Amino acid sequence: MSKWKEKIMDNKQINELAASLREYSIACRRKIHRFAEIAAHEVKTSAFIQQEIQALGLPYEKVSTTGLMAILDTGRPGPHIALRCDIDALPFPEEPNNLMRPKVCVSDDPNTCHACGHDAHSAILLSTMKALVSQKDQLNGSIYFCFEEGEEFGTGYQGMLDALAKRPVDVCYGMHMLASLETGTVNIEAGPRMASTFEMQMKILGKSGHSSRPDLAHNAVFCAANIVTNLGSVWINAFPSGEALPLGITTIQGGGVYNAFPEHAFINGTVRYYNEELGKKAEETIRKVAVNTADMYDCSVEFTDEFYHMGEGPLVNDLHYSTLAYNRIKQILPEGAMVHCPPWIATESFGFYCKKYPAVFAFIGIKNDELGSGADHHNAFFDVDENALDIGIKSALGFVDAVQKEKQ
Amino acid sequence: MSKWKEKIMDNKQINELAASLREYSIACRRKIHRFAEIAAHEVKTSAFIQQEIQALGLPYEKVSTTGLMAILDTGRPGPHIALRCDIDALPFPEEPNNLMRPKVCVSDDPNTCHACGHDAHSAILLSTMKALVSQKDQLNGSIYFCFEEGEEFGTGYQGMLDALAKRPVDVCYGMHMLASLETGTVNIEAGPRMASTFEMQMKILGKSGHSSRPDLAHNAVFCAANIVTNLGSVWINAFPSGEALPLGITTIQGGGVYNAFPEHAFINGTVRYYNEELGKKAEETIRKVAVNTADMYDCSVEFTDEFYHMGEGPLVNDLHYSTLAYNRIKQILPEGAMVHCPPWIATESFGFYCKKYPAVFAFIGIKNDELGSGADHHNAFFDVDENALDIGIKSALGFVDAVQKEKQ
Repeated sequence: MSKWKEKIMDNKQINELAASLREYSIACRRKIHRFAEIAAHEVKTSAFIQQEIQALGLPYEKVSTTGLMAILDTGRPGPHIALRCDIDALPFPEEPNNLMRPKVCVSDDPNTCHACGHDAHSAILLSTMKALVSQKDQLNGSIYFCFEEGEEFGTGYQGMLDALAKRPVDVCYGMHMLASLETGTVNIEAGPRMASTFEMQMKILGKSGHSSRPDLAHNAVFCAANIVTNLGSVWINAFPSGEALPLGITTIQGGGVYNAFPEHAFINGTVRYYNEELGKKAEETIRKVAVNTADMYDCSVEFTDEFYHMGEGPLVNDLHYSTLAYNRIKQILPEGAMVHCPPWIATESFGFYCKKYPAVFAFIGIKNDELGSGADHHNAFFDVDENALDIGIKSALGFVDAVQKEKQ
Repeated sequence: MSKWKEKIMDNKQINELAASLREYSIACRRKIHRFAEIAAHEVKTSAFIQQEIQALGLPYEKVSTTGLMAILDTGRPGPHIALRCDIDALPFPEEPNNLMRPKVCVSDDPNTCHACGHDAHSAILLSTMKALVSQKDQLNGSIYFCFEEGEEFGTGYQGMLDALAKRPVDVCYGMHMLASLETGTVNIEAGPRMASTFEMQMKILGKSGHSSRPDLAHNAVFCAANIVTNLGSVWINAFPSGEALPLGITTIQGGGVYNAFPEHAFINGTVRYYNEELGKKAEETIRKVAVNTADMYDCSVEFTDEFYHMGEGPLVNDLHYSTLAYNRIKQILPEGAMVHCPPWIATESFGFYCKKYPAVFAFIGIKNDELGSGADHHNAFFDVDENALDIGIKSALGFVDAVQKEKQ
């Protein structure tokens, strides 16, 4: 095993590396943007990434269906860092314009599009990989470049975690473009940064009957309505004020004949949470309220399996590594680049990585009023300001550098 | 104008008349049962009734589409009595069996059936007409035989009321088979005997949004649920305990996507009432609760025209004429035949007659466990015990006789 390398990247070097990769990163992003392939079907995207890995001479393995992990092993002792991105698109048509003007490129597939920024994530990780391979002789330990397929539908994370489990891993790093943050800014904060979610699906079993005699029926409609309102009442008493725990009851369905009570009614919705314990308590609370309310109406309630799916867990940034990353990236980027932002209440399969490893997830700003980027994620007008690719590369390099320096 | 006739029917005469009409009434009932034609389409039924009227030599007029009114004018002064029945069937297939055995006859039309007893009502009125024509010389005043089409769908009552409006009318009499009463029994009581109803239909207008941010949406689902439960709370405080005013909320519909709030939700249902004033207050209460609850959620609410339809008004038996009928029919039927029963919370277009004229509505028992009759109205197993036809004829004759005697 070779000796530990003393010389690590300085700010100038990182800025130069990123600048030299500007064209490459934009080309990668546009290529993947045009492919726009959905979960487990990222065939062209995966082939392109594989080709880039091969061009760098890195060993790699295929993960799940279309995921890939490339390994940069310096042969020297040192930290084992996983850098992860997602590569899948969304199953709806893209608007050719963003909020202001025509987009610089649009999906080749009229039914899919990269409306969440995974094209940019992939381009940043490909560029970061290229940069780090070029600096291989200055690095220690190993770096895993994780191209996760199917983030949107959850098809790729387990394979990637299994692939990582075969190797030593000290820390994971991921990133997400964030439409609400200005281009040029980066957010890295310790604590919960993205939510976890579970879906509730319940069926209320009543007894049908004529509307003139509610007493002879067990009215599932009234029961369902009361489950909803009781949830509202219990909710504000069951959980600490100030904890984000949105009760999103999106569907209530029962009946259809004007003068007859139905046999069944249905309630659907989601709960999001940043705190695993509260998420579990929320599920128990829903059960308790539903079962007891149903009993009040001589109804009963069934929960579907979906209810049990507790999601990926909240995405919680590690305090130590977040601080380390924040401090290092702050030195690299212009003053004022590191900003605060509230947690994003969307969910991310990177939450699974956070459950298992110390991890850092960076939000990279892409909002640019002049260019017209800033439409929300999963919106057909969503667009990436490509100037953010440079920031994303510098942030990833800064993170790797910080961890490497710490482990010296 | 001839002189007032002194001789009116005695009990023996009425019993003999009814006995002589037994076969005729059964034949009429079976014929009409087989026709089983729905509202405004009672073509064969109407032609048959017309033929029977013509055979008796009575003047008549066609009313609405298929309704008929025959007039027995004695030419003498005296009471003007309207005897009314309904003639339409229901739009669903008949079960060939009743609760015990094969029915004595079933509908010729596989998609319609007389599952409410209107075939029996028609047979009773045809037989009563035949009996009274045979006693014409003993009678005073005039009798209108009203065969109302389309009671179930409300297509025939207005035409019949218009036809009656052209003539003097002192009192109306109607009848309904009642599946919950034993054959041989009759119920005539003063006060509310059948309900009125209105249908409520409301649309809650909210604002859609993602389930993670209820605060950015106006959740029509939660609002609709709360309108329902608030109605329950307000209801028990707004109305006198003991008044039948069933709040039948049969439908609640909103949403469908697990993680998105819908724009709209819908609530449907009925309210039945025996007291016109409370019916109006119930409508106002629903409006008030819905509008205020919607405002609490930054939603608004729209009511469809259906909401305004206040129905036929409760069917309220006149105190004087009900007592008169009760006393007279009690003398004719065997001891114990006149029974009490609670109001029937179904609705009847005869309620419109009660609004305009003093009126009496008799319930005629048809439940017979041995024969298998007793299935509920509008149920495919519903069957009439034909022994009740005799009771129905005697009751109608008794009513006419009582009014005639009173007006002497």
